[in-house]
Amino acid sequence: MTASGAKITLAHGNGGRFMRELVRNLFAKHFANADLDISADAACLGSVAGTILVTTDGFIVDPLEFPGGDIGSLAVHGTVNDLAVSGATPRWLTLSFLIEEGFDMDCLDRIAASAGAAARACGVSIVAGDTKVVPRGQGGGLYLTASGIGRREAGSVLGMSLIKPGDCLLVNGPVGDHGTAVLLARHEFGLQGDLRSDSASILPYAQAALEISGLRFMRDPTRGGIATVANEISLETGLRIVLDEAMLPVRDQVRGICDMLGYDPLYLACEGRVVAIVAETDAAAMLAAWRRLPGGELAALVGHVETGRPCVVLRTELGGERLLGELEDDPLPRIC
Amino acid sequence: MTASGAKITLAHGNGGRFMRELVRNLFAKHFANADLDISADAACLGSVAGTILVTTDGFIVDPLEFPGGDIGSLAVHGTVNDLAVSGATPRWLTLSFLIEEGFDMDCLDRIAASAGAAARACGVSIVAGDTKVVPRGQGGGLYLTASGIGRREAGSVLGMSLIKPGDCLLVNGPVGDHGTAVLLARHEFGLQGDLRSDSASILPYAQAALEISGLRFMRDPTRGGIATVANEISLETGLRIVLDEAMLPVRDQVRGICDMLGYDPLYLACEGRVVAIVAETDAAAMLAAWRRLPGGELAALVGHVETGRPCVVLRTELGGERLLGELEDDPLPRIC
Repeated sequence: MTASGAKITLAHGNGGRFMRELVRNLFAKHFANADLDISADAACLGSVAGTILVTTDGFIVDPLEFPGGDIGSLAVHGTVNDLAVSGATPRWLTLSFLIEEGFDMDCLDRIAASAGAAARACGVSIVAGDTKVVPRGQGGGLYLTASGIGRREAGSVLGMSLIKPGDCLLVNGPVGDHGTAVLLARHEFGLQGDLRSDSASILPYAQAALEISGLRFMRDPTRGGIATVANEISLETGLRIVLDEAMLPVRDQVRGICDMLGYDPLYLACEGRVVAIVAETDAAAMLAAWRRLPGGELAALVGHVETGRPCVVLRTELGGERLLGELEDDPLPRIC
Repeated sequence: MTASGAKITLAHGNGGRFMRELVRNLFAKHFANADLDISADAACLGSVAGTILVTTDGFIVDPLEFPGGDIGSLAVHGTVNDLAVSGATPRWLTLSFLIEEGFDMDCLDRIAASAGAAARACGVSIVAGDTKVVPRGQGGGLYLTASGIGRREAGSVLGMSLIKPGDCLLVNGPVGDHGTAVLLARHEFGLQGDLRSDSASILPYAQAALEISGLRFMRDPTRGGIATVANEISLETGLRIVLDEAMLPVRDQVRGICDMLGYDPLYLACEGRVVAIVAETDAAAMLAAWRRLPGGELAALVGHVETGRPCVVLRTELGGERLLGELEDDPLPRIC
């Protein structure tokens, strides 16, 4: 629907004819669903039974397209995942586009198509959007902000306050893939590889986890990685978290690149992973359930909650202990 | 809570300690309400009776602070207004911050305080947020994206499809104040003035209008101004909209600046105005109701819906007619 080589102009964000045509010919085409009305100021979701949950996230990943995903699918997955780890079923999304003047229309078309496809695959409807265009030099190409609304059944309430000493920490797959794949896609270090981002909906894992009575809490380890989730839990509960290096799934390629560049995969963003805290008696059942899911073969029990001084400790393969402190610098800006 | 002169760093967006402290010490302080839990992935709104509406908008105004408002209050008002014109009572907001590295912490504090105050004044709770920091040169200081959720009672359904020939077009006050005030605040033309943005919640006007049985449709004339709203109505209904220049409230200062710089106030953004289409028999009652509201003294009946070729026409004070076409160029980027 777009002329090849066409670029976004300031007039695509002015509320007038060009914006109307962009919304109709590009966004509405890719996002089409029964709840989307591009001529309305607000989308009507009807009446909703159950408890409603809402979340929001900005997406600034660079490059916008990378092996395994792009900013469009990432925005959908990230928002779906925040609802899923909260025990909700994601239903509706809003998607706000902040575009820099001169941005390539074909790329925008691909990213909108990718967001639309990801939403359909996750069973959510993109019901409202917005387009703003900033003058050249005042943006980073394209930034997205997504908000998500979901509903939660009674009985699915989770929280860090339920976490007890002895609980187990599980993750549904290898950590650090997204951060490393985006890093490679920047071609900054002359490094190459076939690594793909793990960007995906974790809803099937969350739903399987919700079947387990001993489930306490879930979180998706995005910015700051699994070490940051562990720190958040430790800070909030006042408990000690011990991660077991030998059990932590990290792909060889991720480990190799991190060793070379001085990154720690435990602090790198994942976008299709979920960390769950579960009672020790239920850990084996949850691990088995996750490993049965497609892509869950490498799910692992990677740590425990203990009493003692609140901190996060990595028990190394050699039997030593290394403190995993709270992240302070930003090793990889624009990673998600 | 912030050291004077402190600046935003990339680490304020990395998910680690600095981001946690920023969220706790700055955002949570200004947005505090019972539904905000800064340690959760999604906010729980409980169960909600009635029909749910959702909207989203990005805000890129430059300068960030201007007479009559700032990007924080503007984001709240803009989102509240999109719900209000849809017949809903706004209840919850999410607010996503996209901050450029090096941004002034004191300014961020003022803007967050302003957003929090505006939300309280509008009776809405900011329940979820996000902070992303982009490297210096890849942003425009600060961009916000807000999403809003509201509920609508049965019977408050409005829409352009209800509009009929003979209906009247009302506006609740002078047009073009916001666009002109922001323009002046840029100090680009050596112009000065005491004009203030009209940025405000139009919820009281929407609620008064919903009491009028002949109400068909409402829209807030933001980007593209009242001429763009009239064009949207004409395009969607296939009807002719006639605006009456003599009745259109435009402040002398706005008219003077527009004459000087070649802008048309009918295309300039308003952020505290609402256009309503109402049956002719109810127009006087709605006008009276709006004029009784504080700040509504200059509300006016400014046009009519007619049969005939779909277009928007301005009947001039001299008795001529001027076509008000769809906006094509962008006269004022980053106006909202």
